[in-house]
Amino acid sequence: MARSRTRKQPDNLKLLLSALEEQRLDSVRVMLAGLHPADIATLLESIPPALRRAVWDQVDPKVEGEVLIEVSEAVREDIIREMDQRELVAAARTLDVDEIADLIPDLSDEAIAEILFVMDKQDRQRLDAVLSYGEDTAGGLMNVDTVTVRENLTLEVVLRYLRQRGELPEHTNRLFVVDRSDRLLGALSVSRLLTSNPARRVSEVMQCDLIVFPAQTPDTEVADAFERYNLVTAPVVDEQNRLLGRITVDDVVDVIREEADRTVLARAGLSEDEDVFAPALRTSRRRSVWLGVNLFTAIIAASVVGLFEDTIEKVVALAVMMPVVAGMGGNAGTQTLTTVVRALALGIVTEANARRVLVKELAVGAMNGLVFALAVAVVTVLWHKSLSLGIVIAVAMLINLAIAALAGVVIPIVVRRLGVDPAIASGVILTTVTDVVGFFAFLGLATIFLL
Amino acid sequence: MARSRTRKQPDNLKLLLSALEEQRLDSVRVMLAGLHPADIATLLESIPPALRRAVWDQVDPKVEGEVLIEVSEAVREDIIREMDQRELVAAARTLDVDEIADLIPDLSDEAIAEILFVMDKQDRQRLDAVLSYGEDTAGGLMNVDTVTVRENLTLEVVLRYLRQRGELPEHTNRLFVVDRSDRLLGALSVSRLLTSNPARRVSEVMQCDLIVFPAQTPDTEVADAFERYNLVTAPVVDEQNRLLGRITVDDVVDVIREEADRTVLARAGLSEDEDVFAPALRTSRRRSVWLGVNLFTAIIAASVVGLFEDTIEKVVALAVMMPVVAGMGGNAGTQTLTTVVRALALGIVTEANARRVLVKELAVGAMNGLVFALAVAVVTVLWHKSLSLGIVIAVAMLINLAIAALAGVVIPIVVRRLGVDPAIASGVILTTVTDVVGFFAFLGLATIFLL
Repeated sequence: MARSRTRKQPDNLKLLLSALEEQRLDSVRVMLAGLHPADIATLLESIPPALRRAVWDQVDPKVEGEVLIEVSEAVREDIIREMDQRELVAAARTLDVDEIADLIPDLSDEAIAEILFVMDKQDRQRLDAVLSYGEDTAGGLMNVDTVTVRENLTLEVVLRYLRQRGELPEHTNRLFVVDRSDRLLGALSVSRLLTSNPARRVSEVMQCDLIVFPAQTPDTEVADAFERYNLVTAPVVDEQNRLLGRITVDDVVDVIREEADRTVLARAGLSEDEDVFAPALRTSRRRSVWLGVNLFTAIIAASVVGLFEDTIEKVVALAVMMPVVAGMGGNAGTQTLTTVVRALALGIVTEANARRVLVKELAVGAMNGLVFALAVAVVTVLWHKSLSLGIVIAVAMLINLAIAALAGVVIPIVVRRLGVDPAIASGVILTTVTDVVGFFAFLGLATIFLL
Repeated sequence: MARSRTRKQPDNLKLLLSALEEQRLDSVRVMLAGLHPADIATLLESIPPALRRAVWDQVDPKVEGEVLIEVSEAVREDIIREMDQRELVAAARTLDVDEIADLIPDLSDEAIAEILFVMDKQDRQRLDAVLSYGEDTAGGLMNVDTVTVRENLTLEVVLRYLRQRGELPEHTNRLFVVDRSDRLLGALSVSRLLTSNPARRVSEVMQCDLIVFPAQTPDTEVADAFERYNLVTAPVVDEQNRLLGRITVDDVVDVIREEADRTVLARAGLSEDEDVFAPALRTSRRRSVWLGVNLFTAIIAASVVGLFEDTIEKVVALAVMMPVVAGMGGNAGTQTLTTVVRALALGIVTEANARRVLVKELAVGAMNGLVFALAVAVVTVLWHKSLSLGIVIAVAMLINLAIAALAGVVIPIVVRRLGVDPAIASGVILTTVTDVVGFFAFLGLATIFLL
């Protein structure tokens, strides 16, 4: 009977921690033996570095390679540091060429030399091919285990060939059709192969209209195309249209998840491959860069407030209300920014229609500016019993929400044109703008009209 | 020869906009005819509602259904509102049952009735089956076009059956093996089918150890499992383990992207299906709820400042520096929060190891608290020429960064336990805490020690 589901992660972790506490290493081994390598990887990420060695020793050597591929980069480094060379080489031998390529950056030169030594010549060449492309390109992402056929064969012959060859590479949904010099001519889907008359030739049933990735294509573009065109595999070619390998959807899913992760993490100044249980000192050092940047921008905003010390001394209520003006600008601007950054990434907003987006966002900013200017004015008048303060804060809110809309559209477009990912740098620039404008407009207007 | 890549989206949009401007509708039609439905969908999302009708009229009716499936929900509603019933029914007829199910919520009762009327009985039953599960469950996500075989057949017979049947459903990487009452016994991978001896029986080569989803499984759990176990398709079953359909990776990729999207958008109080070119009034109304929540929290923070008006009146430098203390707490807390929210989602942090995470984050908060307390103290002493103000701000920073670390760990765990997605609600709670604590600690200490 078909198995239902694997046990849930929280239960696994609870079992593992209690087994470790009671030093029952045999139970740890039995438990790990029943888990998928990806689940073992999550467990290793869920425990402090001090416990990882003990758990790692209980992992079946046959799946060690796969587990290494599945753990996050930071944890992988941590584990590899503790492995001896013999163990590493044995783990690498269980992996495919493209997976070994992912491990290479974390290995010592001696380990790499030994792995190359035990590989056969064809695999060594394949590994060279994968390593010659950047990790974040189609070439770096591809598998080199393509099954190719010639166009003049009959399907009958192809079927016989496959049966002789045995087991197909994972995720083989189509065979690639190449000429003598390995140039890609088309693809023969497995579905067509199974359902067509075996007497027909490959050239008659193959699909020629393919989405093909040159090896240098950035991986995010690959991910986009897989998502857009619902691909399971796609061929990678060199400049001469020679087939180099194929990209499979499981690797693309990882790219999509990492991209999404990067976006969320980057907004808090975090990097993707952070180990949750890394030593506190290392984590605090990594995070401090971002906090330093933010301290710098906070001091810029504070220095604007500093210009108006005399005004605040006379009307202390300004100090009470000024964070409201700055904060609302930041929130409204972040809404526009988030919308625009996403639309830029999806290709919905380009420079061709940016002006229309700007006009719309300004209109939204103006409307919400009016609504919240009124709301804040009412609160202010009731609280601080001053009509003129209410009017000043209302006008300052209007100004700040309009500038926030403008900044929310312009900043990501400019940042992107400078070649930086707008998801990363835009946020901190925007809030600096809305803080500075918010403080300046509110305190400036107060200086003019309230003193 | 294999085609290289489709034209890039920005170029498509530029061409489209200029053709529309010059009223060259024929060029629009020719251009759209060369595009994949997903690319047409992006173009429709890239233009204001007023232009959509003109472009929609140039879309080949044969792909209208697919384009409707590909556009975002907000734009789909916009287009469907303008379509007459005959056109809608024609578009729906080109779609698979599971795709029609996705359209149903946007259709009028009459349109639904007519679509049901033109369907055959089997498809009607299938549609009923899909509709009976929530959109965000395995049942709602599944296709009902599975190919099933019996375990006692030889592969030879299966091959003959497939050839008679003709064209397999998209993304068929395995056939499902069921008994007489449709109960799932295992899966026969297409790869096995192609490479095994045709005289063998299905039962000898089928895989029994399957990942199976009960129809009620939440779609995010499905996405997780696809990612974790590198699946291309997976069966969906009812409580009696009867096969209902299968989930394919292309639909899962959409779930992953939507989930990531939702996380990013929700942090700015935006909903996923927002049309970039929706009328400004509609957008501003949608966004104002979030701004209202933030205004409320800003006023809470301001009222803390209000408690210390007398203190500020005497030491105006406090007003200058107080946003720095609050802001740094917010930034440090957001770093912890983002790390914890992600680790919760990945299953790396659970209640079993939450305490260890808290201890680590407190240590990080303390270290960065010390570093930045010192930095801010130095800046303050140099700027405001007051050693005692420097000491007060340093202590307030330390307190706020420690509380920020605590809040960053505790808030998402509590929010999650309350059944709310921590990615959505945690941020605004955290910054309210760090604002309130920052203002209170700084101004409170100043009141005690500086007056």
